[in-house]
Amino acid sequence: MLKPGSTIGILGGGQLGRMLAHAAQQLGFDICIFTDEDDSPAARVSAQTFVADYRDAQALAAFAKRVDVVTTEFENVPAETAQALIDAGALVRPSSQALAIAQDRFDEKSFFNAQGIATPRFAAIASQADLDTAIADMGAPAILKTRRLGYDGRGQIRIKTKADAQGAYAQLGAPGILEAFCPFEREVSIIAARGEDGAVAFYDLCENEHAGGILSRTVLPADVKDDVAARGRDAVKKVLDAFDYVGVLTIEFFVMPNGALVANEMAPRVHNSGHWTIEGALTSQFEQHIRAVAGWPLGPTTRVAGIEMLNLIGDDADTWPTLAADPEARLHLYGKRDARTGRKMGHVTKLKLR
Amino acid sequence: MLKPGSTIGILGGGQLGRMLAHAAQQLGFDICIFTDEDDSPAARVSAQTFVADYRDAQALAAFAKRVDVVTTEFENVPAETAQALIDAGALVRPSSQALAIAQDRFDEKSFFNAQGIATPRFAAIASQADLDTAIADMGAPAILKTRRLGYDGRGQIRIKTKADAQGAYAQLGAPGILEAFCPFEREVSIIAARGEDGAVAFYDLCENEHAGGILSRTVLPADVKDDVAARGRDAVKKVLDAFDYVGVLTIEFFVMPNGALVANEMAPRVHNSGHWTIEGALTSQFEQHIRAVAGWPLGPTTRVAGIEMLNLIGDDADTWPTLAADPEARLHLYGKRDARTGRKMGHVTKLKLR
Repeated sequence: MLKPGSTIGILGGGQLGRMLAHAAQQLGFDICIFTDEDDSPAARVSAQTFVADYRDAQALAAFAKRVDVVTTEFENVPAETAQALIDAGALVRPSSQALAIAQDRFDEKSFFNAQGIATPRFAAIASQADLDTAIADMGAPAILKTRRLGYDGRGQIRIKTKADAQGAYAQLGAPGILEAFCPFEREVSIIAARGEDGAVAFYDLCENEHAGGILSRTVLPADVKDDVAARGRDAVKKVLDAFDYVGVLTIEFFVMPNGALVANEMAPRVHNSGHWTIEGALTSQFEQHIRAVAGWPLGPTTRVAGIEMLNLIGDDADTWPTLAADPEARLHLYGKRDARTGRKMGHVTKLKLR
Repeated sequence: MLKPGSTIGILGGGQLGRMLAHAAQQLGFDICIFTDEDDSPAARVSAQTFVADYRDAQALAAFAKRVDVVTTEFENVPAETAQALIDAGALVRPSSQALAIAQDRFDEKSFFNAQGIATPRFAAIASQADLDTAIADMGAPAILKTRRLGYDGRGQIRIKTKADAQGAYAQLGAPGILEAFCPFEREVSIIAARGEDGAVAFYDLCENEHAGGILSRTVLPADVKDDVAARGRDAVKKVLDAFDYVGVLTIEFFVMPNGALVANEMAPRVHNSGHWTIEGALTSQFEQHIRAVAGWPLGPTTRVAGIEMLNLIGDDADTWPTLAADPEARLHLYGKRDARTGRKMGHVTKLKLR
């Protein structure tokens, strides 16, 4: 168990890093942020920050020396970043293997299938010819996505009819994956943590709504039967155990009309659909992740209320005076200077007390 | 209303400043700490800190320019500090008048009485002769306290019998106040906030236990009748309105066997007996204070569970591995390097969900 007063290093300066920092500080840890961004949300809640390129081996080595464990707020950590940290003697949690697989949609879905976890049909696309073959096989509608570095709906092309496939590979401009359209009934996520000792703790299944590929709303309890949630937890546990994972991990699933769960993607980190846990669970996902990476026992995940979490995207955040006056709204703003379209600026959690 | 992205300045680097910083950051504010202490708990959760003497006018002026409003985590802010900030154009909340009165036990009790709020009998003591006269009048037992700069049981001499008064003034070594012993049944506190618009919000009355003059345990609901709490709220509202107060203020009361409330002292700030509000109320006392000083509407103070808050004093904090493994304990550690006797190192909140 890492002693209070130790320093936890966080790769990434965004809102997830900011909320991780708060949770770690509450437990008595110091925080050191490593980010390539000036004036980042996480850096502004920490007394120690490295601003450098994620491939700057010298800065990474200095960061590794300063901290007692390294974790991350984003999965797209370059492989050489993790390796440089490990070479400099840092303990990196979660492992670079989990990060690497989560970075590539094809590897990720292949990994799910290898664990016996259903996914939509998919095919690797490295050329227009691959795409034409896959579309002929799978049919339309389907979604063409970049294998790497896509998030919040970026790097995606919808193929509504076969004709849409023409030239789509060139438009994508990077190795891709074609995923069959999945006529789901609803979208859900399961957030879980695995401790150093292998113990696993699950949060209640979250029901999610997206708009423009970005999470807009999370509701609990979800309108999903217990056995569906139980199957989801089994899938998440398989993934956690397969990686010998330490930390919080999230899997997003589609729920099909027959109750089947189809894995969409995983995030080897705290997740936007778990922001409600700050007020709504006995241990927040942020504290849970810090507990895990610090080698502490996991905390109880008991949900204390009914939940509605609303993301504030782009100029949604301009409504802050209204939200500040809404007695139902627990308001979180991330301190981002610039409310660009599609940018996550904050969120609101509403509790329905029992 | 102060816009998110504005900077809130906090005088003091202790745990109250640290928890205020977290609350402000959650609402999207930046924080700047002013403290005379290196490596302080609050500075370690902020990207901006001034370390300087509280009487360093130049540093105070620079701090005033950096921030949009100044508040404090401690009442013993030197009068010249507040004045220097005001002279440099800073908005200081709460007002220096409230701070000045709370700094002096004699002025504070005189102020309570002027508002029609009962206190123990008291007398100003500026010499041994004053003490002898007061003891002859008031009898023993009584407590001799310094007028200024006492807290957590420091600067107090118990006069159990009249003989104990001999030489006690010299032992105190500073202007004092003699307070009649008050045979109370229990100790309680009421935490309230007043907004820029004059709105007042109360938290549920807290029942407190002290050990060695230091708060050790807070429990809610208190074993006190509703009409007692209502009289307490009336008293707190009188004080808030008299000061045209903006921010959180706490009054500690003795509850007498007949249900009468006797005011012991006030704190023009967030208070240790309100730490439970982080998990236990819809708006924490820390967020409430930030809302008030930022000119935002106050948030709802609804309590969500039964509460037991336990302070971790001195080497209590060495039990952190046990507390980390206790599913009932929401653990807060303040990041203090050195667990000196009597030092508040952290606290634990236990929730009894309904």
